[in-house]
Amino acid sequence: MKKNRILAVGSVALDSVKTPFGEVTNALGGSVSYFAASARFFSKVALVGVVGRDFPEKYWDKIRSLGVDTACLERKEGKTFHWRGFYGDDLNHAKTLKTELNVFQSFRPCIPRAYRSDRFVFLANIDPDIQREVLGQMGRPHLTACDTMNYWIAHKRPSLMSLLKKVHVFLCNDGEARELSGERSLLKAAKWVLSRGPSLLVIKKGEHGVLCFSKNFTFLAPAFLLEDVFDPTGAGDSFAGGFVGYLVSCRRFSEKAVRKAIVYGSVLASYNVESFSLDRLSRLKRPEIEKRYRQFREMTRF
Amino acid sequence: MKKNRILAVGSVALDSVKTPFGEVTNALGGSVSYFAASARFFSKVALVGVVGRDFPEKYWDKIRSLGVDTACLERKEGKTFHWRGFYGDDLNHAKTLKTELNVFQSFRPCIPRAYRSDRFVFLANIDPDIQREVLGQMGRPHLTACDTMNYWIAHKRPSLMSLLKKVHVFLCNDGEARELSGERSLLKAAKWVLSRGPSLLVIKKGEHGVLCFSKNFTFLAPAFLLEDVFDPTGAGDSFAGGFVGYLVSCRRFSEKAVRKAIVYGSVLASYNVESFSLDRLSRLKRPEIEKRYRQFREMTRF
Repeated sequence: MKKNRILAVGSVALDSVKTPFGEVTNALGGSVSYFAASARFFSKVALVGVVGRDFPEKYWDKIRSLGVDTACLERKEGKTFHWRGFYGDDLNHAKTLKTELNVFQSFRPCIPRAYRSDRFVFLANIDPDIQREVLGQMGRPHLTACDTMNYWIAHKRPSLMSLLKKVHVFLCNDGEARELSGERSLLKAAKWVLSRGPSLLVIKKGEHGVLCFSKNFTFLAPAFLLEDVFDPTGAGDSFAGGFVGYLVSCRRFSEKAVRKAIVYGSVLASYNVESFSLDRLSRLKRPEIEKRYRQFREMTRF
Repeated sequence: MKKNRILAVGSVALDSVKTPFGEVTNALGGSVSYFAASARFFSKVALVGVVGRDFPEKYWDKIRSLGVDTACLERKEGKTFHWRGFYGDDLNHAKTLKTELNVFQSFRPCIPRAYRSDRFVFLANIDPDIQREVLGQMGRPHLTACDTMNYWIAHKRPSLMSLLKKVHVFLCNDGEARELSGERSLLKAAKWVLSRGPSLLVIKKGEHGVLCFSKNFTFLAPAFLLEDVFDPTGAGDSFAGGFVGYLVSCRRFSEKAVRKAIVYGSVLASYNVESFSLDRLSRLKRPEIEKRYRQFREMTRF
């Protein structure tokens, strides 16, 4: 167990993405890659995932160069998870052309003993059965945050509901919050979710910002305003990385810390969408984060 | 000329509206009705519009009971402007079933002499030719704000562009800002608009809040969070009423005043959508406005 280390479980992928501004083939992607590249500014991150034999050596190097612990990143026979998608003029919605799960299909993470007592866990969007299996291997984390997607809400609802009872923070987007709760009103959806387990709900609305709910307070944040969104891939995961990363770096998960964490998450996401893959996040410097944090305050104060 | 009086030009209508929560027939509506019912909390309002012989006496009384000056509200032979529409589950978008312009078709406001030197003018969404005609009758207002809609952007662009040169504040929604500028990015759209005349641009995004741009600053505000939006009709006009009304009540149109005005506008819009027609706005008390203003600060501070 390491103090302030976040054990982050999810996909490491090769992405082929086309946006109105360009395209990349077999770029480094996947939910925990984006999460780790953001969270590392605030906390240690150990990445739990699986890649295939085709996973380029330079990508291993890139992840390690970010200071991310890759001891729990397995390499297996077969090919790496590959996502192929594109964004049209509506950059809020990706169109998936092809999803090849490959080695990720049979991903059953076995957390090494040295990591099982880690106090902070992030479960990126994967099958809720596997998210629960991971939690079952862990001790009693101080903070467990998880993400999900519409597919699991539709096809694994009982498992997801059971997972919700065990996590502190639940992250999803507005459509997912509505689908899960059956409520059109996000305020009603939030009350529904908070009564099912999590003490904090974060609803991501892409270019329209973030809503954060607890039993004691509500925090609304617009998205950082950019001239152009180059590639939205990984926006949600880089948000989660900034959010969870900053929160874990605080001594206490106070309301004040949560509010600041939401803004840091938004800042990290805003940088991420400025380029393909982890390009911007891996070049990013801490003073740039602080600069945009101050601009965020400037743009929202009254 | 009266100090702090806003001359507000636009439609007074009978609305028949259906939402998932109920319906009304021939309810008091129209852009300046909503504007006036909101702005009156902060400033005097003189309403410029036209109604037909069928306009109920009780609606005159209602408008007057709000303290709104109706000396420039004409009654003409014929029927009042009638809008019939409904909202489905997506309360962000009205579906128009029928628009009967009636007496509004030939609306050519002639501003009485006593009002021509008024210093504050609001031009609600009407034909930009008429908006310009009104401005031509006025002296040199200290503050002119105007709204528009997609129809005029598509069909009267040259006239709208000419109007933009003469107004200080331009209000529109996100779709209109994109259509007008040809820019997908709202930040680029804002720069485009600001270079065409207005010193302030307010982009309304419904449930997603408001973006406000000037050459010197940008202000982003989420929408006030409600359990239910009962009827979104008039949300944009009641926002404009709170915004312009508060701004005019300030001695100077400082950045600070503009930011506060945006929040007051959002508060007024949030009350308006809680019921049909002007029902909520006409019952509203100033302490309720202040209460929600404080809640707004609470929900956005970090």
